[in-house]
Amino acid sequence: MSSLRLDPRDVSEWHEEVDILVVGLGVAGAAAALEATSLGAETLVVERGGGGGGTSAMSGGVIYMGGGTPLQRSCGFEDSADEMFEYLMASCGDNPDEAKVRLYCDGSVEQYDWLVGHGVPFKQTYYHGTSGEPPTDDGLVWSGAEQVHPFCEIAKPAPRGHVPQVEHQGGPLLMKVLCAEVEACPAETWMNARCTALYQEADGHVVGAVIEVFGEARNVRARKGVVVTTGGFVLNDEMLEHHAPLAKRCAMRVAADGDDGSGINLGVAAGAATMNMSAVSISMPITQPWGLKRGVLVNAQGQRFVNEDTYYGRLGGAALLHNDGRAWLIVDDEVFEKPTYMEEIAAVGESFAELEAELGLAPGALDATMSLYNRHAEKGEDPVFHKGRDYLEPLTTPPFGAFDCTTEHALYAAFTLGGLRTDTESRVLDPTGAPIPGLFAAGRATSGLSVGGYSSGLSLGDGIFFGRRAARTANARQADPTRAPR
Amino acid sequence: MSSLRLDPRDVSEWHEEVDILVVGLGVAGAAAALEATSLGAETLVVERGGGGGGTSAMSGGVIYMGGGTPLQRSCGFEDSADEMFEYLMASCGDNPDEAKVRLYCDGSVEQYDWLVGHGVPFKQTYYHGTSGEPPTDDGLVWSGAEQVHPFCEIAKPAPRGHVPQVEHQGGPLLMKVLCAEVEACPAETWMNARCTALYQEADGHVVGAVIEVFGEARNVRARKGVVVTTGGFVLNDEMLEHHAPLAKRCAMRVAADGDDGSGINLGVAAGAATMNMSAVSISMPITQPWGLKRGVLVNAQGQRFVNEDTYYGRLGGAALLHNDGRAWLIVDDEVFEKPTYMEEIAAVGESFAELEAELGLAPGALDATMSLYNRHAEKGEDPVFHKGRDYLEPLTTPPFGAFDCTTEHALYAAFTLGGLRTDTESRVLDPTGAPIPGLFAAGRATSGLSVGGYSSGLSLGDGIFFGRRAARTANARQADPTRAPR
Repeated sequence: MSSLRLDPRDVSEWHEEVDILVVGLGVAGAAAALEATSLGAETLVVERGGGGGGTSAMSGGVIYMGGGTPLQRSCGFEDSADEMFEYLMASCGDNPDEAKVRLYCDGSVEQYDWLVGHGVPFKQTYYHGTSGEPPTDDGLVWSGAEQVHPFCEIAKPAPRGHVPQVEHQGGPLLMKVLCAEVEACPAETWMNARCTALYQEADGHVVGAVIEVFGEARNVRARKGVVVTTGGFVLNDEMLEHHAPLAKRCAMRVAADGDDGSGINLGVAAGAATMNMSAVSISMPITQPWGLKRGVLVNAQGQRFVNEDTYYGRLGGAALLHNDGRAWLIVDDEVFEKPTYMEEIAAVGESFAELEAELGLAPGALDATMSLYNRHAEKGEDPVFHKGRDYLEPLTTPPFGAFDCTTEHALYAAFTLGGLRTDTESRVLDPTGAPIPGLFAAGRATSGLSVGGYSSGLSLGDGIFFGRRAARTANARQADPTRAPR
Repeated sequence: MSSLRLDPRDVSEWHEEVDILVVGLGVAGAAAALEATSLGAETLVVERGGGGGGTSAMSGGVIYMGGGTPLQRSCGFEDSADEMFEYLMASCGDNPDEAKVRLYCDGSVEQYDWLVGHGVPFKQTYYHGTSGEPPTDDGLVWSGAEQVHPFCEIAKPAPRGHVPQVEHQGGPLLMKVLCAEVEACPAETWMNARCTALYQEADGHVVGAVIEVFGEARNVRARKGVVVTTGGFVLNDEMLEHHAPLAKRCAMRVAADGDDGSGINLGVAAGAATMNMSAVSISMPITQPWGLKRGVLVNAQGQRFVNEDTYYGRLGGAALLHNDGRAWLIVDDEVFEKPTYMEEIAAVGESFAELEAELGLAPGALDATMSLYNRHAEKGEDPVFHKGRDYLEPLTTPPFGAFDCTTEHALYAAFTLGGLRTDTESRVLDPTGAPIPGLFAAGRATSGLSVGGYSSGLSLGDGIFFGRRAARTANARQADPTRAPR
């Protein structure tokens, strides 16, 4: 059978025995390890990299939290768990897990306090720019599409991106702090240690794993459970082809080396169900300078397809998943400025007719789109896609230009959102919905809060939240001395 | 653990022992059973329904075959396996399995002969209408988008829908013939017999199954293999929510009772990987009378989104998966006629401005779309979506009308295309790509030839093809007397 699943009867020696084995030391693994040790569980954390951090340490460090955190309140923002819930249910794709979203929102203030308690610094200031990640060391940012159509009409907007206090990129600091906490806690940690198989008894109980360390395979018995926090699968070409083939066209894959689906596959080999494997976050770099949002995004038919002022983590999906990655940002001379994350000007023309000919669009197509847009924009309206007034301006000053936003020429950045099916207690489930005893998971190895439209900070956020829950659920199990008896 | 996977060590008695156990008697199961017995394998077929047929017997009976079948040639059509391959690779979604498509095309003429050899009658006549299923008893029809953009430019079109000779609906006849063949062959058949679990050894070998018959659980040992041909999962709400939530909005689910994913889940519990679980075929009833294709489909933004003359099995996906199920078919007084499969006229107006106001579209949006369309249609052109000349006609004669093609009011019909990951030999694979010994699958329990855009006849077609291959591969295995020894 698959060497990903092994029979514990074949084990001649357990090299290590612990209560809880955590596989992966990104933010979810760190949270699981800290929670497990706080409960007194004998814990081993294994990480295939040379040090902890994983993809979390490459991220912007934004953590999506709300419901009235101390940081939100000190910056003068009102928020409630209910408003946060409404926003997430509306914005997180076609079928978010309602029970998980509810729990996450209700526990968000406590999660903020937990992070502060572990020494993660949040400057009590608000960054005014629209962004996913602030260039400053401010603590609170807008990190989703809360302020734009249709979400501003569904839930009262509040900024919910909480960023550790450091300029430019909070992920490295976040993981530096949390990995130091893990080092300081009673958990044992093995680096350069890769989990290559789970030990599963014939009745389904997961009782341990094989950990390869420097060429040696060590059998680790986990009395209470194995917690898989190994990340997503955006680096696994075959898995992308099988589940989310369009994501392969993105120039950038937001990932550390470990995001090859290894932990998802360990679960699958053990009989776990997966969910939302086609869901991907795809962003496109129409983000800075903000003024470029006054431009108009069109597809290969010269049609608009999105409100250009929405969060950039939603633009890429609209362009790639629904418009084949063919997109151009139309600007006029007023709006034109050098973009931060795009280079190529695909065409310039004195009229939209000239521009559409340059772009090879159907005669009249772009002109029809822009006439309609301008006609409404002059009145500060966009009845077609409901772009907000801040970025609504008729494009009337020639020359007109088109930035190339095709997948070939613009920086599309992708990561995966689907994975193992888990319940609210972070137990990995089989296809009947029954837990696989002894197997837990959190972070992007699981299907997360967002199963479609993304907001920055949701993956760090649900990784922490469900990583901690995994540790609690595992620890509450009775270690059964009759299992894996050696 | 999951009761879907059981430990054969717990079996006190095998009630039945065969070489090959086929689970499900739709077209894939029939093909597997006939092939298995032709090779001399002792075969048992179990079907949860009271009789054979499954979803295949509810279908139109179209089987997608080509490459120069005798029927194609007798109707005067040239075709080659290469042209068929090019069409399928271009039209079957974002990442069709090239090796399977290649094999399928190369084996298509032989498959036709095999069906004829088993008594499936094909009248040697061609039906001229554009359709998925002919209303006549003609044998050959167009059953995909071969003749329209972009496929007509990619591969030389040929009709490849092969339909058993009967008026209106070929599926019942196809399955009547094949089920009679199964009854006449040496295979044993159990009806009202449901497979509830697989027996899998600790090393991964599948050695049998539990079959529930009239309340009694019978342990069936399969010396060479279990072949899962249980169909898709469109009737399983939870699975749809987890993999293809938008499909739940379709009023019609193309399915027999068995399409609840039970066989997929048996495989998953045994450690199988799945593929393309989000892929669905969604059709929408803009099909007859043909003249309605002269109408113009628009979305909630008043924009066109597809060439209206494409195969109806592609229209629904374009409308639901990419345009939120908001669609209206715009017609003028010339084009207007009573549709066969739609009822509701959503709005009527003397001008497009009036019509768009009636529909609640943004002012000017529909007018801009129709002006552009008419301007080009007057010249017999559609440079935006490349609709063919046959159905291109400016809509200029008031009153104008809009048929309601929203998911709430039009007949969207869905079935699932993803499922168990299998190789070209129909072996079920684990996430590493290794076969699970003794486990085989075919038909819509597997990820099929089409993983997106559909052509009628592909599911019957690949069910037959890979059902037969499953039987051949299983039969070639050595029965191992050391396994499942009781």
